[in-house]
Amino acid sequence: IANKKLLVLPGDGIGPEVMHEVRRVIDWMEQRRLVRFEIGEGLVGGAAIDAEGVPCPDRTLEAAREADAVLFGSVGGPKWDKLPFEQRPELGILRLRKELGLFANLRPAIVLDPLVDASSLKPDVVRGLDIMIVRESTGGIYFGEPRGIHTDANGKRIGIDTEVYSEDEIARAARVAFDLARKRRNKVTSTEKANVMQSGRLWRAVVSEVHKAEFPDVELEHMYADNAAMQLCSRPKQFDVILASNLFGDVLSDLAAALTGSLGMLPSATLGAVQPDGRRHALYEPIHGSAPDIAGKGIANPSAQILSFAMLLRWSFGMEEQARMVEQAVERVLAGGMRTADIMQPGMARISCSVMGESVVREL
Amino acid sequence: IANKKLLVLPGDGIGPEVMHEVRRVIDWMEQRRLVRFEIGEGLVGGAAIDAEGVPCPDRTLEAAREADAVLFGSVGGPKWDKLPFEQRPELGILRLRKELGLFANLRPAIVLDPLVDASSLKPDVVRGLDIMIVRESTGGIYFGEPRGIHTDANGKRIGIDTEVYSEDEIARAARVAFDLARKRRNKVTSTEKANVMQSGRLWRAVVSEVHKAEFPDVELEHMYADNAAMQLCSRPKQFDVILASNLFGDVLSDLAAALTGSLGMLPSATLGAVQPDGRRHALYEPIHGSAPDIAGKGIANPSAQILSFAMLLRWSFGMEEQARMVEQAVERVLAGGMRTADIMQPGMARISCSVMGESVVREL
Ligand SMILES: CC(C)[C@H](C(=O)O)[C@@H](O)C(=O)O
Ligand SMILES: CC(C)[C@H](C(=O)O)[C@@H](O)C(=O)O
Repeated sequence: IANKKLLVLPGDGIGPEVMHEVRRVIDWMEQRRLVRFEIGEGLVGGAAIDAEGVPCPDRTLEAAREADAVLFGSVGGPKWDKLPFEQRPELGILRLRKELGLFANLRPAIVLDPLVDASSLKPDVVRGLDIMIVRESTGGIYFGEPRGIHTDANGKRIGIDTEVYSEDEIARAARVAFDLARKRRNKVTSTEKANVMQSGRLWRAVVSEVHKAEFPDVELEHMYADNAAMQLCSRPKQFDVILASNLFGDVLSDLAAALTGSLGMLPSATLGAVQPDGRRHALYEPIHGSAPDIAGKGIANPSAQILSFAMLLRWSFGMEEQARMVEQAVERVLAGGMRTADIMQPGMARISCSVMGESVVREL
Repeated sequence: IANKKLLVLPGDGIGPEVMHEVRRVIDWMEQRRLVRFEIGEGLVGGAAIDAEGVPCPDRTLEAAREADAVLFGSVGGPKWDKLPFEQRPELGILRLRKELGLFANLRPAIVLDPLVDASSLKPDVVRGLDIMIVRESTGGIYFGEPRGIHTDANGKRIGIDTEVYSEDEIARAARVAFDLARKRRNKVTSTEKANVMQSGRLWRAVVSEVHKAEFPDVELEHMYADNAAMQLCSRPKQFDVILASNLFGDVLSDLAAALTGSLGMLPSATLGAVQPDGRRHALYEPIHGSAPDIAGKGIANPSAQILSFAMLLRWSFGMEEQARMVEQAVERVLAGGMRTADIMQPGMARISCSVMGESVVREL
């Protein structure tokens, strides 16, 4: 087995503690010679601000560029809320996405059988739910220029952001969605506000063109983003793959995650384009944020971080078998009745972050 | 009772049929001399495009300006999907909002006791739900310039929209939210993406300033819009008043409406500033759209349109008593077990749009 370069970026809040449990899983695998990694660790987010004054130091960026995959924790917290905009922890992940060209953020929303009751929705509405959201993640309103807060002639402040999408940006995100749909239930729901936004109008046109030219066999449906939010809540199982801009994807993927009731279980991947040499930049992170309110208490659920590592094994390292091993170990821990606080249910055994990590290793 | 000027704009899809049921309610009230209106009717949306080539004819705008209140149906439908952007039915409502200065779109999400089971959420999660969303509705990304689809130097299309907010626009929307909160449970949750958007950063700052200077007695909480979507789904009862930009408000209010499972029951109001002469432009409309798929079938639920009329009576005409009468009549019809198709439940009697309207009149 080749030496793969893995960069670990724990970040802030519960990031370090859940990442600690992943390290146990990696250790176990390395001992069994199931994998061999060259592991680097770097600073990002508030942790990087505290140590070096910027949310994504050049050294971190370089290490990420050289790595075969990045395992990311989470960034942000009240400690850095008063900093000027350009120095916020969140810019750490935005810079990584942008500089590595990680344009396709894949966010599965899956309801595992033992966790059906964790959802706030009725069991029948969410049982077996399996949605994949493809969120465009290097364009749109988080990056468009002009942006800033200006003062007008009357001394009044004006805040500006620009939503801008080129047809190529839309097309490559759409291709990822159609490709995934082919391996799933063959349906893509593309969301925008083509009725009131110009970027939405272009979005709808380009997605239709890519569909017609390259993926006519996949079912394509267009849906306004407001309606998509509504439909996700009322009839989520109608969806297979949902395609969305950076902004709508942010909101809709968080909503889809909330439907499952088990945010602490959900991994995500953000992928770049395949390079001429066959390499592809990729970053894996849990959907949950840094959860500063519970950080350091040892009660966080490390599953999403562990499952992000499993996704990494599968998609970046081609280790399908090892990925399944990890995923099944997590599932067996749940089936055995152990629950971290976030997914606790009556009759189950409440366990800490580290016991969850240990239990996963035991199941391995 | 003074002669009040009411402008009725049925619009497209199910708009005309649900409006027809409101007319029955108005007729009944006029016969009883409970109200006296000067009622005008106008064209808007696709209906106006078909008749006059534009989604909001000047005549409609003038009539709306002169009216004491506007009762709006809904606009849009596949029939007009191929029209150029500037001629879309949706621009009818956007022009009315903009030209009349209707900047505060108030969207209640309420779960009535007999309809708890209509929700896709567990009964305990939504029973007694009562959220009010204040959506800014004349600014932000639906109106900001520059906007359009351009071709760059390489012949590639680029779609652009601009999110722009001035501090005054934010402040006046915030005041509406704080004012409402004082009459409710005294809490405002202001939503934005201050972590990644400049307009969001200004939004948070201005809302905090207005709070400190004018409403220190109201509880204020800031929440990222993605997290708000998540929290609405998992623990909706934590909210009282939610304040949001035009774009986030669009998505979050539709989501909040979906939580109730009874979209066909939800009215909304869009208010302008109080003028020096004490008048205030106002437009009332159901939250549901034009629902082209069921238009003309006689199965739409007219309740949201009827309840929009009740809101109009209360807020624009100061007729609290008459408003309550209408609302209670609707509630009694439901309590009696009658349901239109959208909220049908086992054991209830399924009725048509017109029978629902007749039943409300009977209960009056
Ligand atoms: C941390 C923040 C910049 C980020 C985003 O909005 O993209 C987060 O909310 C996410 O969804 O990954
Ligand atoms: C019809 C459309 C322009 C409108 C909007 O997006 O504002 C609708 O979705 C709404 O929410 O009132």
